[in-house]
Amino acid sequence: MNLREISSPDNSKVKNFAALTRKKQRDKQGRYIIEGPNLLMEALKNGVDPELVLFRRSAFSGRESRCGPGELPAGLRNTGEYRDLLDLLERGGAEGGPKTRPEVLLLADGLFDRLGQTDTPQGVMAVVKKRTWTEEELFGRSSAPCGRRSNGNILVLDRLQDPGNLGTALRTADGAGFSGALLLSGCGDIYSPKVVRACAGTLFRLPVYFCGTPGQALELLHRNHKKVYATALNGSRLYYECDLKSELALVIGNEGNGVCAEFLEEADGLLSIPMAGNLESLNAAVAAGILMYETVRQRNGG
Amino acid sequence: MNLREISSPDNSKVKNFAALTRKKQRDKQGRYIIEGPNLLMEALKNGVDPELVLFRRSAFSGRESRCGPGELPAGLRNTGEYRDLLDLLERGGAEGGPKTRPEVLLLADGLFDRLGQTDTPQGVMAVVKKRTWTEEELFGRSSAPCGRRSNGNILVLDRLQDPGNLGTALRTADGAGFSGALLLSGCGDIYSPKVVRACAGTLFRLPVYFCGTPGQALELLHRNHKKVYATALNGSRLYYECDLKSELALVIGNEGNGVCAEFLEEADGLLSIPMAGNLESLNAAVAAGILMYETVRQRNGG
Repeated sequence: MNLREISSPDNSKVKNFAALTRKKQRDKQGRYIIEGPNLLMEALKNGVDPELVLFRRSAFSGRESRCGPGELPAGLRNTGEYRDLLDLLERGGAEGGPKTRPEVLLLADGLFDRLGQTDTPQGVMAVVKKRTWTEEELFGRSSAPCGRRSNGNILVLDRLQDPGNLGTALRTADGAGFSGALLLSGCGDIYSPKVVRACAGTLFRLPVYFCGTPGQALELLHRNHKKVYATALNGSRLYYECDLKSELALVIGNEGNGVCAEFLEEADGLLSIPMAGNLESLNAAVAAGILMYETVRQRNGG
Repeated sequence: MNLREISSPDNSKVKNFAALTRKKQRDKQGRYIIEGPNLLMEALKNGVDPELVLFRRSAFSGRESRCGPGELPAGLRNTGEYRDLLDLLERGGAEGGPKTRPEVLLLADGLFDRLGQTDTPQGVMAVVKKRTWTEEELFGRSSAPCGRRSNGNILVLDRLQDPGNLGTALRTADGAGFSGALLLSGCGDIYSPKVVRACAGTLFRLPVYFCGTPGQALELLHRNHKKVYATALNGSRLYYECDLKSELALVIGNEGNGVCAEFLEEADGLLSIPMAGNLESLNAAVAAGILMYETVRQRNGG
């Protein structure tokens, strides 16, 4: 395996990688960064092949011994906790490995740390292609990816902004078996490092479909026979008093302003979460979680 | 009102404020920082009086006119969105105001921004005293603070680390009407700026009690007749199949390692959240939210 060690930030691969920390470049290149061995393993398990993998030099703890150019020093290769991962990548294109063999680079620690977006660098980062999901996949009509069993429900995110909330809401939709997520214009970028981290692998298997306006989203959802429920603070029914057993779309709104007027007017039902004391509202991702799992509970007869 | 404008980072009040961004100093001084007008209003509404309030110079948009030393320029005083807040603080010690009048300083924008912990400075920050809650208050046996109606349930956090998760879990406990939260050694600092922000005012009214070990927590909970439920990935019952109507303590574990063995062994029940597809677990704060609101739903007969 071609394992060059790089220490210059001017290396073209390194510069290209660094560019992906910006949304504009992620949009242009159709690629994003994943960090850490867990997320990389998760990608591989879900058939998402990295194109480029960067290891941190110190991730390999063995003593360095002399070796030919373009090879990982033997003393490194056989020690350290990242060995299994490297072995797996090496089998790219062969039985038991990823479909293709990624390019793998070994980065000097300082350079690796400057490129990383986490406070505690984890030893490996990779570049993967964004996946484009079809309407069929969003609604769970084509064969579910990665053996997911989906329940026909859709999570709709209406201008959700906070990266942690975005990632956590998508992760919970995955856990609750929702068919997919519909993201409206005005949401944060789901391929930013914080969202990718909060998603914990969900991005590799949950169909995420992008849609412009609330009007377009409503048209799409009605055409696919989904009832539409939105969260609202006032003038609505307690969520656990509503029948949420049929296939539905659940609209979660912006952190500060809630769900927009068009959804509130057109929704089949408005759901409120009871609040004790003086708290005004819950965190958006927690509210989404409570409501998504209420649909699971009602269907499975808890 | 004494409103000095300060631009030097060497000012002793400013240095003391800056020190509170560190946990060690927060512990030593027994004080913490709150940021933004919403949180400050929330503190005042809950009877938590700030000791020191810092306004950002530009929060007052009016033209500056000449005025005597120690006074806010008249052109500033009567314009800008922070006027109501300043008026309220001025009534300190009098009818309709806080019990005491805080010290108020006007900071040069650059200095204010360097002290702030949010990406988008909001125009006001304040120092408040940590509140010490008693065991009586934790269990909702003394008169509930701020008119909270509490349901006798306790949220137990076992080495929860992430500031966003800590704040969000406490906020949800407040919303769900839990009596209080019990924090074990090894949790992150709930007075760090990120937690304070994620709490959205909950810190001013939800009793939070600190406890050392799982053994001490179990003793305290049993002595107060709480059933103890812990979250667990395997070998446990689906949460919505358990009877969660009686007064209970809900243990939420560390993000990476879950609930510790002592709780798992001693708990009256282990609750699992069903997971579709390949996701291993939910975000800890979301899991906490789903379970806390299931206790609300079961009690209120959803």
